[in-house]
Amino acid sequence: MIVITSNVTPDEQIGEIVKVIEKEGLQAHVSKGADRTVIGLIGSVSPKLSEHLRQMKGVENVVKISKSYKLASRDFHPEDTIIDIKGVKIGGKEIVIMGGPCAVESAEQIDEIAALVKAAGGQVLRGGAFKPRTGPYSFQGVGVEGLIMMQEAGKKHGLLTITEVMTPEYVDICAEYADILQIGTRNMQNFDLLRKLGTCGKPVLLKRGFSATYDELLNAAEYILAGGNPDVMLCERGIRTFESYTRNTLDLAAIPVLQQLSHLPVISDPSHGTGRRELVAPMSKASIAAGANGLIVEMHTDPDNSMTGDGVQSLFPDQFAELLQDLEKLAPLVGRTFNTEKAPAENFLSRV
Amino acid sequence: MIVITSNVTPDEQIGEIVKVIEKEGLQAHVSKGADRTVIGLIGSVSPKLSEHLRQMKGVENVVKISKSYKLASRDFHPEDTIIDIKGVKIGGKEIVIMGGPCAVESAEQIDEIAALVKAAGGQVLRGGAFKPRTGPYSFQGVGVEGLIMMQEAGKKHGLLTITEVMTPEYVDICAEYADILQIGTRNMQNFDLLRKLGTCGKPVLLKRGFSATYDELLNAAEYILAGGNPDVMLCERGIRTFESYTRNTLDLAAIPVLQQLSHLPVISDPSHGTGRRELVAPMSKASIAAGANGLIVEMHTDPDNSMTGDGVQSLFPDQFAELLQDLEKLAPLVGRTFNTEKAPAENFLSRV
Amino acid sequence: MIVITSNVTPDEQIGEIVKVIEKEGLQAHVSKGADRTVIGLIGSVSPKLSEHLRQMKGVENVVKISKSYKLASRDFHPEDTIIDIKGVKIGGKEIVIMGGPCAVESAEQIDEIAALVKAAGGQVLRGGAFKPRTGPYSFQGVGVEGLIMMQEAGKKHGLLTITEVMTPEYVDICAEYADILQIGTRNMQNFDLLRKLGTCGKPVLLKRGFSATYDELLNAAEYILAGGNPDVMLCERGIRTFESYTRNTLDLAAIPVLQQLSHLPVISDPSHGTGRRELVAPMSKASIAAGANGLIVEMHTDPDNSMTGDGVQSLFPDQFAELLQDLEKLAPLVGRTFNTEKAPAENFLSRV
Amino acid sequence: MIVITSNVTPDEQIGEIVKVIEKEGLQAHVSKGADRTVIGLIGSVSPKLSEHLRQMKGVENVVKISKSYKLASRDFHPEDTIIDIKGVKIGGKEIVIMGGPCAVESAEQIDEIAALVKAAGGQVLRGGAFKPRTGPYSFQGVGVEGLIMMQEAGKKHGLLTITEVMTPEYVDICAEYADILQIGTRNMQNFDLLRKLGTCGKPVLLKRGFSATYDELLNAAEYILAGGNPDVMLCERGIRTFESYTRNTLDLAAIPVLQQLSHLPVISDPSHGTGRRELVAPMSKASIAAGANGLIVEMHTDPDNSMTGDGVQSLFPDQFAELLQDLEKLAPLVGRTFNTEKAPAENFLSRV
Repeated sequence: MIVITSNVTPDEQIGEIVKVIEKEGLQAHVSKGADRTVIGLIGSVSPKLSEHLRQMKGVENVVKISKSYKLASRDFHPEDTIIDIKGVKIGGKEIVIMGGPCAVESAEQIDEIAALVKAAGGQVLRGGAFKPRTGPYSFQGVGVEGLIMMQEAGKKHGLLTITEVMTPEYVDICAEYADILQIGTRNMQNFDLLRKLGTCGKPVLLKRGFSATYDELLNAAEYILAGGNPDVMLCERGIRTFESYTRNTLDLAAIPVLQQLSHLPVISDPSHGTGRRELVAPMSKASIAAGANGLIVEMHTDPDNSMTGDGVQSLFPDQFAELLQDLEKLAPLVGRTFNTEKAPAENFLSRV
Repeated sequence: MIVITSNVTPDEQIGEIVKVIEKEGLQAHVSKGADRTVIGLIGSVSPKLSEHLRQMKGVENVVKISKSYKLASRDFHPEDTIIDIKGVKIGGKEIVIMGGPCAVESAEQIDEIAALVKAAGGQVLRGGAFKPRTGPYSFQGVGVEGLIMMQEAGKKHGLLTITEVMTPEYVDICAEYADILQIGTRNMQNFDLLRKLGTCGKPVLLKRGFSATYDELLNAAEYILAGGNPDVMLCERGIRTFESYTRNTLDLAAIPVLQQLSHLPVISDPSHGTGRRELVAPMSKASIAAGANGLIVEMHTDPDNSMTGDGVQSLFPDQFAELLQDLEKLAPLVGRTFNTEKAPAENFLSRV
Repeated sequence: MIVITSNVTPDEQIGEIVKVIEKEGLQAHVSKGADRTVIGLIGSVSPKLSEHLRQMKGVENVVKISKSYKLASRDFHPEDTIIDIKGVKIGGKEIVIMGGPCAVESAEQIDEIAALVKAAGGQVLRGGAFKPRTGPYSFQGVGVEGLIMMQEAGKKHGLLTITEVMTPEYVDICAEYADILQIGTRNMQNFDLLRKLGTCGKPVLLKRGFSATYDELLNAAEYILAGGNPDVMLCERGIRTFESYTRNTLDLAAIPVLQQLSHLPVISDPSHGTGRRELVAPMSKASIAAGANGLIVEMHTDPDNSMTGDGVQSLFPDQFAELLQDLEKLAPLVGRTFNTEKAPAENFLSRV
Repeated sequence: MIVITSNVTPDEQIGEIVKVIEKEGLQAHVSKGADRTVIGLIGSVSPKLSEHLRQMKGVENVVKISKSYKLASRDFHPEDTIIDIKGVKIGGKEIVIMGGPCAVESAEQIDEIAALVKAAGGQVLRGGAFKPRTGPYSFQGVGVEGLIMMQEAGKKHGLLTITEVMTPEYVDICAEYADILQIGTRNMQNFDLLRKLGTCGKPVLLKRGFSATYDELLNAAEYILAGGNPDVMLCERGIRTFESYTRNTLDLAAIPVLQQLSHLPVISDPSHGTGRRELVAPMSKASIAAGANGLIVEMHTDPDNSMTGDGVQSLFPDQFAELLQDLEKLAPLVGRTFNTEKAPAENFLSRV
């Protein structure tokens, strides 16, 4: 159930409406748009309460939402959510590029890559400190030290940082060091982790489970939103199908579908979505053409010797820079802008 | 096995090489590139023949191809295949747009739609005369009369025509009336039909089976090529996955993958690939950004009353025209050109 | 729409009802059960006709069937269809075993294998004369000669024969030599072939497309039934999934589901369904335990040298014989009987 | 790497071998079979160590295992693992039946159902206290109180208990109250949870992820085994495919495949594997016929009013009792035995 207020309702009256809702033991989520305020009710609404709300001053309409998710739905929040992190706006006109290695390997490695990401026009440094691995004997990441290395590299080069958090007890420490917390495909329905993220105080990039439907992804986002954290990005990263030539099948229709069903920003991950370096550039362009709000792309200075063995899907630095130049040209054609603060590409390319 | 000749080998010497191959009871497929000529051998090659060929004048190299398909492989034909149909070149720099209704319904309908396709900048008129239907009681198409109606509409408006052929005995009549024969997703492994297309004398657009791998698609193309028809286009039209919100999952990575494995043009079908009108424009743009050589798009003047019930995925004429305007701007960014002969879009849009 | 008559309606009155239906330009399919006769109407039924039928003498009820298939539906034909071929009853209490090689290779091969199938208790000899192959350069079968070899082997050893037909023009010749025509997984939606089978005069085993839903399989069967051939068996042979350890994923739930939705016999194919010899026995037993009416199993005297390369999924003769002994014990537990005419197994096993 | 000792090697010598391994900083897992002892080495083995071990007294062979999992592999542990819990042996000749509601709802409910499970011949009571739910607003279980209710019902009726644990911090409390801990399909790759289970001191039933390959399931089991807990059961519970008539596609080939690749017991879950009550009995029989070591089946006294809404896949008590009678007859045909301690079925059936 959502309550839609008329466009001149003063804050005090919104407060009155919330009081009525909370008196009945329900939660009220208030979302202020440019035009009007929408109040989402979480819990079972009695017909009596519904009627009471409908007749309150300032209430334009009371609408039942039959979807299992509410706060993630565009019905509840008609305008795009724009997440502002230290001035970088995700979900608005600007395309946001997150680049970096699969795993943080050393302070030197992450510093060198951060410089390259910045020079090419990226805004966010990605890198894993804790790695989810199919088997127990694979490299599992360098841990907390990696978080510190990333934070330093990010600060030095003027980049935000994003890192994956795999378990509830590491949410706090990851939130301390990173600007964005990433939830991996295998954890999309780790409900305890999702709940913990609701109160972590940092934006979250939620990757679609590799066999999750759109509906399940939006319900997973709902866990975080319902916990009190409004800053969730959805990420399409490829689904598992019968085709095994590519590591996954990147489902680009997810981008316009999710933007239609939800107000949350949608990021595409062409690196995991294809698992092959030579496909990252065409699928990055296709993602932007399909309307993605940003990309998360693996880049490594020495992909063949990466510690996770995922190098086969990492771009070389010059490929990364060239891709971003192409995206800069593509952006205005789909009504988007591209980072204008970046260092001149010529300097960068001659340096590599 | 393929024989690669050196770049100055005269035609007579190519003829000598072919004679040696055919004397052993094998087929020889000659493919002339700008630089050099490549000869494909179909059949089991003895070590003795292989050695003989290697030592012939004009032979630069003899290479074993381990893929199950040969003629469809880029190893055999390193340059892009460009299919020239009455001056429209498919597979080269120009993006080719095929538009029209799911099914031909009447002479008036197809004439009206042809005018709209042409005005918007399309080069090919699509329309089904024979329809493959899951159940026996659904509308099965208007038959041969539909072919005639399409041919007339195409001629009148200066468009090529493409229509689906479902069974070997209809290949000849379809080839008589249409410029391109389309093989539907359910017939991709109808081997008898594929063999018949090898000698039909018309270019073929081969749709990927909705559960076919890239390798199976290329093997299906190989049937047509081995039959003597070099003019095959591959078409990505969505695969069947667990996600049911969209009718299929359009696998755009197929575009760069197929272009890498093969020299054949790759066309994208965002209408069947999504099954939803509102997703056709973003997925069309994404297809072109991923490198597609063209699109096949459903458009209908009255989609809600289309006879096949597929109207839900057909664009309205003004949406079609607007999409093509967007693609025209997008084309140069991916190194492509767009039809310049089209009627002025302003005229068209005001007319609709 | 179906018309259900009361249980004492004489044939003449059934004839009257049919006349009324046909006068309106519709088809009437009459299905006589033990209790009552059901008449299926194919075509669009006007409310007036529906009301007229409801009031005719002998009519108990007129029921609208919303499924896209009618004749294949259990609503239309509540009792199990039992197909009687020269005394072998498929769809009744007896479990029917079809065994033999993937492809007929020679008269000696098929004669030897027929003897083994018979000795072990099988009732039907399987073998391909025309083979559907993914690539055009693979062994495509021995053709019509193979049909003749199979017919002779079947006659000599007292077995029915089943062979795959791949294209409409071969239906007649296959129907001349074989007792059952098999439609392969890639041809399940070859609608022209299905239509031709409607008038072929022989029972048909229709394999589920490897990515077909239950609904699509039943609609494919409907094509054959609507064409006038009531003798259709459905065959589960594995579907394509992400799991690649097995060649396909044998979907055994299809057995009870199809038996619930339809009256047609359901056969399981554990050979293609798994693609691995060591899984054929457990999946055969599981198929019978799930209620299958029969099995189609590959068996070869020299699987490692089979001409199709499918030997890896063929049982050795002694494994086949042992499996049938196990199934004989299993049959009564699921309310089924097993062939009692077979040669003594001891004799057989000592001979192998 | 595994070290295989000769069959008369005394324990002291085994100890010597382990010492040599641990001195190099590796872990040694000792597995005693009836015939011989096998020692698994976890960590990177130098050629020098490998050679040293090969020449030690009592060592018959040193074998490199290329699979990513070792302790879960049958190479390392050739004999079936039999898990003995208070006298109930899982993985041996006896078929083990786990039955009960999706969720514990009240003390009365679970007590009543426990009596019915026991009377029908089951050995384990299932029931969820914490429920994983796709959306945050669904019933999430009764929590710790539910664990206590289950334990009491289990004790009173002489049943073991199994309950799902969803997060590392609940492992200890679940291990305190339940005999077996169940890991749900969405948590199969919750690596932190898997690690915690390695030291929980209780047997674990690990459900296959609904899109996990066999290899990924065995790697997930490896996490638990490598953590020191040898008592892991694998559970096939259906995979996600394109077919949506059933909730999942129960992949019964998984049973013989997993038993071939691994020594761990394999349990089948026909309730979640089909999502439809009417398919539970045929798929239960098929599972046992395919070789399953046991079943986990939902049963509810009032399925239409179950709190999780999963009642549609729960058997009624009399269906459950009838199924177990059928399985009792089926067991000897596949070389298995069935619980003989159960209360007389006649008494039970008359009581329902």
